[in-house]
Amino acid sequence: MDKSQIPALGIDLGGTKICAGLVINHTLTGETRRIPTPQGADNITKALLELIRHFQETNFIMGVGIATAGIVNPETGEVIGSTGNLPGWEGTPIKKLIQSRTALRCHVENDANAAAYGEFHAAHLEDRICTVTVTLGTGIGVGIVLNGKLYRGAHFAAGECGHIKISMDNRRRCTCNLWDCWEAYGSGRGLQATGWKLLEGLSPGQSSLVDKRDNLTTKDILEAAAEGDSVARQALEKWHEHVACGLVSLCHTLDPDAFVITGGMSKFIDYSTLRDMLADRTLPRVSEKLEIHPSILGEAAGMVGAADLVLDAAREAEGAAVL
Amino acid sequence: MDKSQIPALGIDLGGTKICAGLVINHTLTGETRRIPTPQGADNITKALLELIRHFQETNFIMGVGIATAGIVNPETGEVIGSTGNLPGWEGTPIKKLIQSRTALRCHVENDANAAAYGEFHAAHLEDRICTVTVTLGTGIGVGIVLNGKLYRGAHFAAGECGHIKISMDNRRRCTCNLWDCWEAYGSGRGLQATGWKLLEGLSPGQSSLVDKRDNLTTKDILEAAAEGDSVARQALEKWHEHVACGLVSLCHTLDPDAFVITGGMSKFIDYSTLRDMLADRTLPRVSEKLEIHPSILGEAAGMVGAADLVLDAAREAEGAAVL
Repeated sequence: MDKSQIPALGIDLGGTKICAGLVINHTLTGETRRIPTPQGADNITKALLELIRHFQETNFIMGVGIATAGIVNPETGEVIGSTGNLPGWEGTPIKKLIQSRTALRCHVENDANAAAYGEFHAAHLEDRICTVTVTLGTGIGVGIVLNGKLYRGAHFAAGECGHIKISMDNRRRCTCNLWDCWEAYGSGRGLQATGWKLLEGLSPGQSSLVDKRDNLTTKDILEAAAEGDSVARQALEKWHEHVACGLVSLCHTLDPDAFVITGGMSKFIDYSTLRDMLADRTLPRVSEKLEIHPSILGEAAGMVGAADLVLDAAREAEGAAVL
Repeated sequence: MDKSQIPALGIDLGGTKICAGLVINHTLTGETRRIPTPQGADNITKALLELIRHFQETNFIMGVGIATAGIVNPETGEVIGSTGNLPGWEGTPIKKLIQSRTALRCHVENDANAAAYGEFHAAHLEDRICTVTVTLGTGIGVGIVLNGKLYRGAHFAAGECGHIKISMDNRRRCTCNLWDCWEAYGSGRGLQATGWKLLEGLSPGQSSLVDKRDNLTTKDILEAAAEGDSVARQALEKWHEHVACGLVSLCHTLDPDAFVITGGMSKFIDYSTLRDMLADRTLPRVSEKLEIHPSILGEAAGMVGAADLVLDAAREAEGAAVL
């Protein structure tokens, strides 16, 4: 049997939903399951085990890759910090639990890292020195691939770039409680806050969004912008500037070959505007040859990347056994 | 003969002076020569060759390491960008010139990278995953050592962190012509600008610096602060905040084990203040175990690091020859 045709199960565990699907050759294959994320660590673990059993009923699988919110130690497979979206999840020894209950190989990874690994392979960027994948969603997550490997830092917190500081005046508080984090401006939540701020003191005649201000959503802003509302357009333009501002710091620190922009908000990026903004705000050496790729995997990036990681681990273990 | 006892010549080529000295075991040994930097590429090359000849008269040397301002391709040994301080130096094939004229092995490196490599070894940080050395001088330079190797990025511009954006309002223009670069605030030049700004509209009775405002130097500010001048103290406090602001971005991007702070301005850092500021402005996971080391090599960092790099290259070449 050709082992490259045996799938791994990729699971993306987010604050609101859990998605799972089988992955072969960096691609989802067959059915994808999506369930709401239950409350509490025990219920999440139970849901993960049920998903795995479901896929095992009809498939032989090589292992399970789990992309989860929070800072992860992938060696122990434990979530060790920052899981605001998943209360009670910190400290759960996921890998150990899954392996002992299913006898399957398991790899647990931070969701932005998993997405980065998935997009890196899907876009065939294997020959690049540095690829930085930015997940623009409710928050901002970053995954850094250096010479083909995820770079995780000294305390598994590399790529927590949502908390880069892009202003010094304590203007906006981030959900992490720090001030002026990139994420407080460049994420979906950031766009909302920018819209809200721009609407301050306006009368209903000045923007169609004024009446919606109390419960303003990113969808409201995007729709109003599409209909030509000038305040909504200004909010979108500012949001692009905010996204660019963090990318500038990443350019001058990591000097990447390529950015990949993924996540739910990435489809609203105007790439031509973003490229121009980066060219204007960086040293020529850094941006001249910089590639900016839109996501290839979209919402599947976390699942595919997590599955890729467990498949790689299986191959490495096999290689080691043969030696 | 014990080859580890044969020195390399380390040369630090800056905008105002060239320093050279012999290095054994990550330490300067014997005489250090210091000459003013001449104008133009030909004269600089001539000065470098004279320095090498001077040290060769009385010593057998393994090679020459050159730390230079500007973005460097260390494979070709050519300065390929950003040499505002050394007009006309860009494009000079230094390594080729030195090797052909002296028959010595030569390694050319960006000065912040060379300093980082020197400090990394001098502080015995070899077991760390990520060490980030920040050179605070007239400008700001950063060198990143990952798993024992300098990380240079896709276009040899990694660590150009002086141009991280720490504000979004186009408040201060950097010497690179970009706006609100870290260097425009956190360098010596940045401290000067902050002092100047704080003195705006003050009368001579309010600060001893008011009369010096037109030609304000960092020395003026540091002396006045030592004498208790409140405006000077405020400038120094703000400077610490500005330095911290860039470090926060580096923490959340690279998640380093350790920062080393070097360069002419580093001796004015209050480390306790800086540590507190970082703890207040970063995720706990990132700063809890973060080490901040003051420079060990001081002004010699560039010389020592450049010499270390050519000694390493010589050892690697020898290892390859034996294999």
